[in-house]
Amino acid sequence: MPSAVTTLSRWQDGRLEPGEDLVAGECPVAISFNRRPYVVMMATPANLEELGLGFCLTEGLLDDAGELLASRVIERDQGVELALTVAETALARLDGQRRNLSGRTGCGLCGAETLEQAMAVPPKVGEQLQVSHQALQSALASLEANQPLQAATGAVHCAAWCDAGGRVVTAREDVGRHNALDKLLGWRASAGPGGGFVVVSSRASYEMVHKCAMAGVELLLAVSAPTALAIAYAEHCGLSLVGFARPGRHNIYTAPGRVVNG
Amino acid sequence: MPSAVTTLSRWQDGRLEPGEDLVAGECPVAISFNRRPYVVMMATPANLEELGLGFCLTEGLLDDAGELLASRVIERDQGVELALTVAETALARLDGQRRNLSGRTGCGLCGAETLEQAMAVPPKVGEQLQVSHQALQSALASLEANQPLQAATGAVHCAAWCDAGGRVVTAREDVGRHNALDKLLGWRASAGPGGGFVVVSSRASYEMVHKCAMAGVELLLAVSAPTALAIAYAEHCGLSLVGFARPGRHNIYTAPGRVVNG
Repeated sequence: MPSAVTTLSRWQDGRLEPGEDLVAGECPVAISFNRRPYVVMMATPANLEELGLGFCLTEGLLDDAGELLASRVIERDQGVELALTVAETALARLDGQRRNLSGRTGCGLCGAETLEQAMAVPPKVGEQLQVSHQALQSALASLEANQPLQAATGAVHCAAWCDAGGRVVTAREDVGRHNALDKLLGWRASAGPGGGFVVVSSRASYEMVHKCAMAGVELLLAVSAPTALAIAYAEHCGLSLVGFARPGRHNIYTAPGRVVNG
Repeated sequence: MPSAVTTLSRWQDGRLEPGEDLVAGECPVAISFNRRPYVVMMATPANLEELGLGFCLTEGLLDDAGELLASRVIERDQGVELALTVAETALARLDGQRRNLSGRTGCGLCGAETLEQAMAVPPKVGEQLQVSHQALQSALASLEANQPLQAATGAVHCAAWCDAGGRVVTAREDVGRHNALDKLLGWRASAGPGGGFVVVSSRASYEMVHKCAMAGVELLLAVSAPTALAIAYAEHCGLSLVGFARPGRHNIYTAPGRVVNG
């Protein structure tokens, strides 16, 4: 379940009282390819098919959504199996690539053993997008209304797709920020929503930029701070990285040409 | 470097101006055991020897700190190698365990391919600690003063060790909350600071509880929310999990007996 009720002892103003609260669901999700175990990650158990597709694309495991033939969520004793069926050609490539594989965050460094494996740079993103500063601000202002699980539990991140006018088209939530982004990008790969950009409720670290670039996203708007490496990667991929987005202000770190007045 | 200067375009109140800011350093760190590559993770390049020791202990790669014979930080073209030398007995065990290995977060699920591997439960923690609600509140109040990198960059997490009276003994910061905790627990394994508890600036997800339990920590105080699985694990390990810690209030989710009035 995306959320669950827990009992607790609430200490407030010097008094301890029993209570209960909603907490975010977090569940081990074992991804398998054609029934062979691949990796286990922790995720909020919702939109798991999207998570699978998004993860495959942003980690470079599949070249396009068409290589994923089927996905099925199977309840297991200790969690959930996300059983993905991929084309034989993709499977052969996957086995070839099979390196030490990642834990839970599915964040682009998955299983890299060496620096050279880890630091492969995604290709440059396109240059179709133009957005206004006000559109970025509109997206930011609309984000909270699209975070029902966060409102209930205070424990999850959000990634949303916004059209070029800054309207939130859809949003995904997860205890892991990489997962929220993978779910969103999995949705996008199926739904093909047209031009727009990604906004995330979290920081912009390297792997968030990496995942966006792998999916060809042109602009990433993050509520919180970017890291130095995230900036370097965004620069390299030509992705517009906007951070510290708060009402009335935001910082553009890279590729500022896509953001215009208005 | 733990932080770096970046240039940016600052949009505020309808005006765009060039500026610069400090951003958190984030760097690929390749851990090797006796010169064999093991895993690459992203981390803030400070206190890396502590990160190595903490990671080995909280991931169950080493049984105790004595098995780590030497650690050396070596600058490489694309990042940093953290070259760990471990005892031959540990190396043999490591190779035996060698499963698909994790990416960057070093968070307890490292490289698990199956649910059974992933969900191994740490042993029960001890029952030595008694702290007061006020001590928890003191620790919380002192945390911010121990986060210089966060103050400068707004992009890092903090984990601190507090004595039973709630005084912060030492604190570690990192772009990754698992890394901040591993650095702290690596420090603790060397310094042996005596009784106390851990406070983290972040949420309490499963892997934070897992790491604490692996290190025998009896109480984890988190500024933000716990997840459902974090609560279940803490219950199982007998670890006191306290979350949503704010001035004047906090919630005790598990093992409340360690927290007393006063």
